[in-house]
Amino acid sequence: MFEDRSQKKQRTEISSLGEFGLIRELTKNLSIKNNKNILGSGDDAAIANYSDEQTLVSTEIFTEKVHFDLSYTPLKHLGYKLVVAGVSDIYAMNGTPSQVLIGLGLSNRFSLEAVQELYEGIEAACTHYQIDLTGGDITSSAVGLVISITALGHAKEEDIVRRNGAQENDLILTTGDLGAAYLGLLLLEREKKVFEANPEMQPELNKFDYLLKRQLKPDIHFVLLNELREKGVKPTSMIDISDGLASDIMHITHASKKGCRIYEEKIPIDAESIQLSEEFNLNPVTVALNGGEDYELLFTVKAIDYEKIKTITGIQVIGHITSEGSGDHLVTTDERLIELSAPGWIKAYENNNGEEHK
Amino acid sequence: MFEDRSQKKQRTEISSLGEFGLIRELTKNLSIKNNKNILGSGDDAAIANYSDEQTLVSTEIFTEKVHFDLSYTPLKHLGYKLVVAGVSDIYAMNGTPSQVLIGLGLSNRFSLEAVQELYEGIEAACTHYQIDLTGGDITSSAVGLVISITALGHAKEEDIVRRNGAQENDLILTTGDLGAAYLGLLLLEREKKVFEANPEMQPELNKFDYLLKRQLKPDIHFVLLNELREKGVKPTSMIDISDGLASDIMHITHASKKGCRIYEEKIPIDAESIQLSEEFNLNPVTVALNGGEDYELLFTVKAIDYEKIKTITGIQVIGHITSEGSGDHLVTTDERLIELSAPGWIKAYENNNGEEHK
Repeated sequence: MFEDRSQKKQRTEISSLGEFGLIRELTKNLSIKNNKNILGSGDDAAIANYSDEQTLVSTEIFTEKVHFDLSYTPLKHLGYKLVVAGVSDIYAMNGTPSQVLIGLGLSNRFSLEAVQELYEGIEAACTHYQIDLTGGDITSSAVGLVISITALGHAKEEDIVRRNGAQENDLILTTGDLGAAYLGLLLLEREKKVFEANPEMQPELNKFDYLLKRQLKPDIHFVLLNELREKGVKPTSMIDISDGLASDIMHITHASKKGCRIYEEKIPIDAESIQLSEEFNLNPVTVALNGGEDYELLFTVKAIDYEKIKTITGIQVIGHITSEGSGDHLVTTDERLIELSAPGWIKAYENNNGEEHK
Repeated sequence: MFEDRSQKKQRTEISSLGEFGLIRELTKNLSIKNNKNILGSGDDAAIANYSDEQTLVSTEIFTEKVHFDLSYTPLKHLGYKLVVAGVSDIYAMNGTPSQVLIGLGLSNRFSLEAVQELYEGIEAACTHYQIDLTGGDITSSAVGLVISITALGHAKEEDIVRRNGAQENDLILTTGDLGAAYLGLLLLEREKKVFEANPEMQPELNKFDYLLKRQLKPDIHFVLLNELREKGVKPTSMIDISDGLASDIMHITHASKKGCRIYEEKIPIDAESIQLSEEFNLNPVTVALNGGEDYELLFTVKAIDYEKIKTITGIQVIGHITSEGSGDHLVTTDERLIELSAPGWIKAYENNNGEEHK
């Protein structure tokens, strides 16, 4: 980490391959593994057959320096995480992902080997989630790396869970724990600064393996959705936590025209998260509420269904849905009510100096 | 054109809206119009139902300064053209497009009004092609504008046309005429330089309305696909001409493991294209072969089908498929054979200085 990798590795200029050579190189080992997919890359469009199920589709776009810093993000991890971000939206509809398409804008800073490393990560995630990389687009970019990911999936009509179905008194649950990915990012940023100030200094990272994994190579607890199905419980609403718990529960309550109460003491936070929050003098609950990139599933179920699912490990009740107009609140351990707010990416946007300010 | 539009218009900072405010503003008038679409924007994923048909999906990525120059490209036209680029891939499979998703990376140079102008163009194209904008992603970008477009469509299994079905002696046809979009670009680049050298100078553009339209607001001759169907003719292979006739016919011949002969005298070239080629001292056939961005449909049919379709106006036989290993050739008017080559975007890539060379 942080070392100059260009010294150690072969570097093949993309210009020596040509566009079509690059695409051939990257796709030569791709074969269709998911039985919903009929044709992957190599034509104008990919072909899929969802027969009697409905098609789910979602797209996201990631830009260098805003979403990722390549000085501490291995390209392989970045590729993996992109796929996770894509399929997360499909699971959040209670669907099953089947394919992703990648759009890549590359500056000439990137060699074939760099792009191959990115694709290795993409393919590792595709294998993990049993989906195919079915195509995409590669082009040049005047500045840095830009990546779009489109995920497709499918679900029976009656299984699809939207954001707008939460009812008053429904329980709010989350998978996993929250805030860890953001703390992993803070840790990497801190060690980057230390390294820049003194390149002899070894980064102190191994105390926080879990946080780093959550930032660099997150995974989705989709198996828990299968467990819910097995117990005969269908969530009334669902979303993936990408912007942060506060923003994402409010997406549910706004779409459902309801309010919510989240209980501070119920929010699952890992021990490493608490420890590193202390080092940074941050409140771990604030981090869990606003950190984002957790890729946990946030969902609501009818209160009556709780008995059926309370034995499932890895999910946690964190609050309940309240009536329309009652607002979105955090209930603190000392029983104060604090109104939730949803910052979204706008903070990053304001801090982004862009080309106008260089 | 070329004027500083920021003087005339209201400017609302995106930071004053927040991410979710921006998305609400842009999507407030969106409603589903295409009956294949069940849910558009507002959830984790869009939902579509292609019932007994197959799903087609394609994605592309466009970056500022590589694919478009905002000094002479109105954002509304850019939005329109993006959708055309997306649906073009669906038509090229002989499918029917039904929805697009847009990913947007914005630097803080862009105001709400600028993004709204882009969306007006996107929506105008969606109306023209009877499709829905069903979602996407908006984020910040450290530098400039980055746009990804994903198009979905559908087709009956038996109607889908791939690139790999061309057989020896099949005729090669194209819709419309070729080279005009690239010449429109050269014209805009020339007038931009004139304007930069002397802002008093009025650009000389009106002589070449058709070329400008082909560059700034292209459309697809998809109606011709319906005419082929009505005549009972299914192409044996098809692609859209986005890289240029030479590259794209070679995509077909490589996928089909065949060769081809294209006849110079048969390539359809508009009178404006010939006139401007002369001004630039370019061979209009070279421009037609390598210009790109034509968004015409290039396809092959069995020779026996020619009788059925020869009365269709707007399509033109330009050559035929030859045996494997015979190569891809242009036959010039004086009957010389010239081997075709496929430059792709690599030329632009090599000319792109990127952030390393600033």
